[in-house]
This record gives sequence, structure tokens and C-alpha cells, in this order.
Amino acid sequence: MSDQIKNQQNQAEKWFRELRNQMVGAIQKLDGSTFIEEEWNRPGGGGGLMSILKGDIFEKVGVNISTVHGEFSEEFRGNMPGTEEDSRFWASGISVVAHMKNPRIAAAHFNTRYITTKGKQWFGGGCDLTPAIPEQLETDNFHDGLKRTCDQHDDNYYFQFKKQCDDYFFLKHRGEPRGVGGIFFDYIDKNFAKDLSFIKDTGQYFINFLIENVKRKKDFEFNKDDLEALSKKRSRYVEFNLLYDRGTLFGLKTGGNIDAILMSMPPNAKWD
Amino acid sequence: MSDQIKNQQNQAEKWFRELRNQMVGAIQKLDGSTFIEEEWNRPGGGGGLMSILKGDIFEKVGVNISTVHGEFSEEFRGNMPGTEEDSRFWASGISVVAHMKNPRIAAAHFNTRYITTKGKQWFGGGCDLTPAIPEQLETDNFHDGLKRTCDQHDDNYYFQFKKQCDDYFFLKHRGEPRGVGGIFFDYIDKNFAKDLSFIKDTGQYFINFLIENVKRKKDFEFNKDDLEALSKKRSRYVEFNLLYDRGTLFGLKTGGNIDAILMSMPPNAKWD
Repeated sequence: MSDQIKNQQNQAEKWFRELRNQMVGAIQKLDGSTFIEEEWNRPGGGGGLMSILKGDIFEKVGVNISTVHGEFSEEFRGNMPGTEEDSRFWASGISVVAHMKNPRIAAAHFNTRYITTKGKQWFGGGCDLTPAIPEQLETDNFHDGLKRTCDQHDDNYYFQFKKQCDDYFFLKHRGEPRGVGGIFFDYIDKNFAKDLSFIKDTGQYFINFLIENVKRKKDFEFNKDDLEALSKKRSRYVEFNLLYDRGTLFGLKTGGNIDAILMSMPPNAKWD
Repeated sequence: MSDQIKNQQNQAEKWFRELRNQMVGAIQKLDGSTFIEEEWNRPGGGGGLMSILKGDIFEKVGVNISTVHGEFSEEFRGNMPGTEEDSRFWASGISVVAHMKNPRIAAAHFNTRYITTKGKQWFGGGCDLTPAIPEQLETDNFHDGLKRTCDQHDDNYYFQFKKQCDDYFFLKHRGEPRGVGGIFFDYIDKNFAKDLSFIKDTGQYFINFLIENVKRKKDFEFNKDDLEALSKKRSRYVEFNLLYDRGTLFGLKTGGNIDAILMSMPPNAKWD
């Protein structure tokens, strides 16, 4: 591997760790509860740090960072760019899922990853909101901020990545979207420094939005019906994760760490 | 289609309806609550009757019968015996899933179906238990009765079908069985009259076991920890249905009736 790519891996990994520390710190400070941390190793190479908080405002937040490397099995090799001649890969990433106690605050999800193979290196990721009880101001705030963030980097990003998010977070069997969208992107590989700058900005934007949104809404009143609506919305979250989410299915099929893979599951769910 | 096969379809369908009425009647009588019924039509041909009871003893029971016909899409054609020359099929079946309020009573599942294609006609189905808090007596009673039922028809059935059940109801990603097993079979096509007799006996056995088991255990005491154990076990039920269950995935991919397909989902679930 070239020194240049090694250097890029280090920069990406270092920033994922910094963002993780920022997120964990900001959420702990707001909630007053503490994350429980667990390191894990991947038998095939690498590992990660899983952090879970069950708090007073945040019902369940999972923050996972991992850096893994190894070889893609024959099954996945064909799907991964740049692995035609050499099946080795390196991947580092961060994922965050926050399920809230107050049913009037949307669940929030963020993830980003940097993947390198012999022939290609790229960023992927995104963030989106899943409210049980949608609030126009929350949805607008989130999208307005995402658009501002994207527009600083490329005029086409917001429009393109919003569409990709809507297409991805869709429950085909029900013909309904999982939530109110956000952005979703993959194979970002224009220029490492510029790409990393975009990735950093989305991460900073997400944590700022999450904290400000929770501060604004944490004392909103709610009733039993709102809690019912939350439990039912969470069943759609479960259905999406187990039926469609590529990361979840990839992880379960390749023998990943179960707790880390299913960290994004809501704490509970109800079916009608 | 030959008159003989038409006659066999009628016999199978008639019995599924009779068993459905028996099950619904026996469960209503024991619980004191009433099933809500909903007929549905399949755009491609046929339809069914979905019945749901949310009662005092039975937290959620779904009983679904359906008779559908049409043509398999190219995707599924290759997987279905007897469809090489003619992709038309006819299928009738019944499925029952009972989730109990008392966490010390196992959830119970039964289903059977008769499928005919140009080149083949067969029965498939099975039944199994998923206790949150396993009780040896319950497990033994269930398996002893299944063995007696199977042994009346074929000395190999119980051993063979128990193994197929254990293999099928297994959560590979967790390396754990869904429950305590039962029997699971497919492509039963020795002799229609004898096969139907076996199918009838398994259905009668299941409903008798379900009612007697619930009568025996409905007043068992339980505490908050037992309810927690139930909610957690139900998360495994959800994971199985959405990740592995062939009927569920087939139904969702082929645009089946969502409510009928997801009727088997537990009323709620918790993830750690």
C-alpha cells in the first residue's frame, strides 16, 4: 500500500475517533448519564469501540467506531469496486443512532465510512431523521442545515444525496418512507482532502443539530397515544433494518459483532 | 387440470377451513374474547380470511387461511417443483401463531399448505414452540405428542421432521435456536389420502395441545423479570421472521397482503 493511502486512512480514522469523542461528550453532558463502552475485536482483523447510553432524555444512543481489514469473500468481491485483482480491503467508520424517550423528538441516525481497496478509495455515509410524530419545524431545520452544509462543497450534493436517501430509506413492502429523509451518499472519491472536509462538515452539522434539536424539544409534553405512536414507528425501524439495511445484512452474513450490528435497533417496538 | 387434482384441492381446502373454524372456536371459548375477521383478495388471483384475537389469556393470536392461484414469476419458477413447463400454481393453507400474555406459556406456531403445480402436488407445514421461559414439562409434552402423532403415519417422520425443524428455526447470526422446536416438513407427496390424514392429525394434535397447555398454565404466577424475558425473546422472533422466514420473505417480495404476512409478528419486542 502506498504511503499516501496509508496517510489518508490515518487521517480518516483519526477524525472518526475525534467525532466519536465529541458526540459522546456532548450527549453525556446534555443527558447527565454515562456511556457504557465495550471494545471488540474482529476475528478476521481489526475491531472497534461500541458505546451505549441509556439515559433520561436519550432512551438509547449507540455510537460505534470500528476499523477493520481483511479479504472480501467471493460472494462480496464482485460488489466492491477495486477488488477485481486483489480482494483485500480496509474500512473505518463511525455510526450513531439516537432513540429518544420523548416521542415528539425524532430518532436520528448518522454514519460515515472510508473504504480502501487495491483499485479505489472512497467515503460513504449519510444521516436521516425518523420522527414518530413529524414536526414541520424539525424537518425543515434538519434539511435546511443539510442543504447549507452540502452547498459549501458542491451545488449538486444536497439534491442528489437527498434523493438517494429517500430511495434508500423506503419500506417497499409497505410503500412508505422510514422517516423524513436526510442525505445518503456513497463512492465519494473526487479529492481526498476536499472529500474529508465535506465528511467532517456533515459530522459536525449532525452533532450540532442533534444537540440543539433535543434541547429545544426535550420538555415538549406528550401523552399515552404519543408513546403508542413511537412504539409503532419503531416497528418500521426494525423492519427496515432487518429487511433492507445493507450494513446490517452485510454484517450478519459476514459474522460481524452482533451487538455492534444491532446497536441501531430501537429499544422496543410494537406491531398492530 | 385433472378432476382428481381438483378433487384433492377441494378436500385440502375444505379441511383447512374446518380446522380454522375449530381453532377459532376453541380459542374464543377459552379466552372469552372474539376474533376480528378480515377477508382479503389477492390481485393476482384468490384471497383469504385473516382473523386476529387480542384477548385476556391470548395476547395476540392470528389465524389465516388463504387459497391463491396464478403464475410464478421467473424469479421463483426455478425453485418450485413441477413448474419447468408450466409456471401456474395453486396453493391453499392455514397458519396460526399464538403469543401469550403469561410469559411462562410458550408462543405456539402451526402452519400447513397444499400446493399444486403442473408436475407435482404436495403438502408442507409444521409446528413449533417458542417459550421465553422454557419449562421441561411443556417441551416434553409437546414433543411426546408430536412423536405419537407422527409414529401413527411413518416411523421416520418424527425424527426426520424434528431435525428439519431444528435446522430451520435457527438464528444463524446469534448461533441460537428460536425456540424448543417441533416438526417441519415439505414436499409430502406419497399418497394424497394418507398424506391428508397425516396433515389432519398434526392439526388436531396442535389445537388440542395448545388448549390443554394454556389451561394448565394460564394461572401460573409471573413477575416483572418474566415479562422482560418475554419481550426479549420476542425480539428473536422478530429477527427470525424478517431475516430468515421463507414465507415472510416470499410474501413481502411478491406483494402479498402485508397484514396477513406480518400477522405472526409478536405484539411487542425489546432489544437489549
